[in-house]
Amino acid sequence: PPVASSMEEGRRKLMEFPYLSAPVRDLMVELISTAENRLESHLLPCTLPLDVQYYENPNGNSQASLQIRRGIDSSPIDFILGCWIHSKLPTGGDLNITTLLGYMNSSTDAPNCLIELIQPSPTSLVIILDLPPRKDPVLYPDYLHTFYESTQLDTYRQQIEKIPEAKPFLSASLHVRSLLSPTKIMFSVETEAGDSARMEEIVRSHLIPVFKDVLGIWLNQCACGEREVGETEKAYLTKRDSLIRIKSIEMDLESSFPSLFGPELASRVISEIRKVLSGDS
Amino acid sequence: PPVASSMEEGRRKLMEFPYLSAPVRDLMVELISTAENRLESHLLPCTLPLDVQYYENPNGNSQASLQIRRGIDSSPIDFILGCWIHSKLPTGGDLNITTLLGYMNSSTDAPNCLIELIQPSPTSLVIILDLPPRKDPVLYPDYLHTFYESTQLDTYRQQIEKIPEAKPFLSASLHVRSLLSPTKIMFSVETEAGDSARMEEIVRSHLIPVFKDVLGIWLNQCACGEREVGETEKAYLTKRDSLIRIKSIEMDLESSFPSLFGPELASRVISEIRKVLSGDS
Repeated sequence: PPVASSMEEGRRKLMEFPYLSAPVRDLMVELISTAENRLESHLLPCTLPLDVQYYENPNGNSQASLQIRRGIDSSPIDFILGCWIHSKLPTGGDLNITTLLGYMNSSTDAPNCLIELIQPSPTSLVIILDLPPRKDPVLYPDYLHTFYESTQLDTYRQQIEKIPEAKPFLSASLHVRSLLSPTKIMFSVETEAGDSARMEEIVRSHLIPVFKDVLGIWLNQCACGEREVGETEKAYLTKRDSLIRIKSIEMDLESSFPSLFGPELASRVISEIRKVLSGDS
Repeated sequence: PPVASSMEEGRRKLMEFPYLSAPVRDLMVELISTAENRLESHLLPCTLPLDVQYYENPNGNSQASLQIRRGIDSSPIDFILGCWIHSKLPTGGDLNITTLLGYMNSSTDAPNCLIELIQPSPTSLVIILDLPPRKDPVLYPDYLHTFYESTQLDTYRQQIEKIPEAKPFLSASLHVRSLLSPTKIMFSVETEAGDSARMEEIVRSHLIPVFKDVLGIWLNQCACGEREVGETEKAYLTKRDSLIRIKSIEMDLESSFPSLFGPELASRVISEIRKVLSGDS
């Protein structure tokens, strides 16, 4: 049937990750498969239009793949989003961004999951791995304790910090810095020019285990954990979530998509993503 | 008159900074004098008991100086605190912490000021310089814009980041990480063993200008800026401030003071600080 096969086609395109080096591609495929297997009973199929699941700009130097699966009504998961974007930049370099997001809805206050890999070349990689809090950790010390201290999340950051080639990485956006957790894993990893063997070793021996464990903490304690949320809290979560989502669309999409994909395509893609982020069906 | 001279005596002890290297001492003296000169009309004299303004433990291997000046009733400043603590550790090293705090009261939502210098040796220095936000920057994007983006605070962090000997420094406490701002300046600066001349150059050419400018931003835009705060907001600020203050007493004082100064002296000092932090006169 055409619907089923188009669904498979979109997912297949995503999982190709044609512009990632082999070990980074393996990492992403493993993370997405793990999340999907664990959450299968929570998720609806991706219903994005086909031309938003995969798209490229008219002259073919920018391509992107996008899959979004909303949670079923009874699930605390709002949606899972996987995407990659590739673009040959006019400056000569390559833009290469891969993202996996798990966003919760306001029936729970559990943290979201944010994974982003930026790979401009086979010997250079920026990693962002975090469970961004959905409540101000200063105002809610129990929340900080439950999700960040007792889960020992910081030990994973410390493991990455020990890699000699890993340097702390900071977002230029103060908004992004503010929304990440105190145990955020944000590093840029650079091996000597041409030494992609060392990068492969770093990804396989150090990154893959840490990403799998942190995703596992999110799946077990956040996505599938039980939390009680009162009405006042629900309103607080809805407001805070929505501020983050609106700002993300402005910063990540509206600022760059029109120049990468042309205004028409960009506006179609952004409008589909906006629907999901704002909870419209 | 004995009261006036005892006040001067306590302040004189603070400004001696007997365990800091000369350039770091000059930095602290200049920061405290600048803050006092600017805020003189806002501040009451220090009324701490003399034996809390300066104290040492019975065997003489730990000493500390403390000055706290509350704001007058009509001022948005709650208090200014300056202190240094020195201790010969059983492990052989020296504990050497110098702090300057400017805390606002709930008539304003303007950020506090936090300056801390940890100097275990003349060639090693940890710097913490921040204007910790008093509102969740995610929930209040205007707040983030006013105090952190439009003040260009991040450019000062970038200046320090460029010093080759400066490495990003992270607090072990997730609570402390959460309460600091997205433009926090936290670095450990280490010059080669014995090269205190290079450390002096770093302090004089790089640190002093940045500390003075950031303190200037705090004095102009926060301590002396005009802000309107409604009743609901006032309750929010009071709650958030108080959570931070209680946690700070637990973490910074109750955990270490009894072993440094003995239980009796520690409890007397902590009780005086607690009075100020909780707003009791």
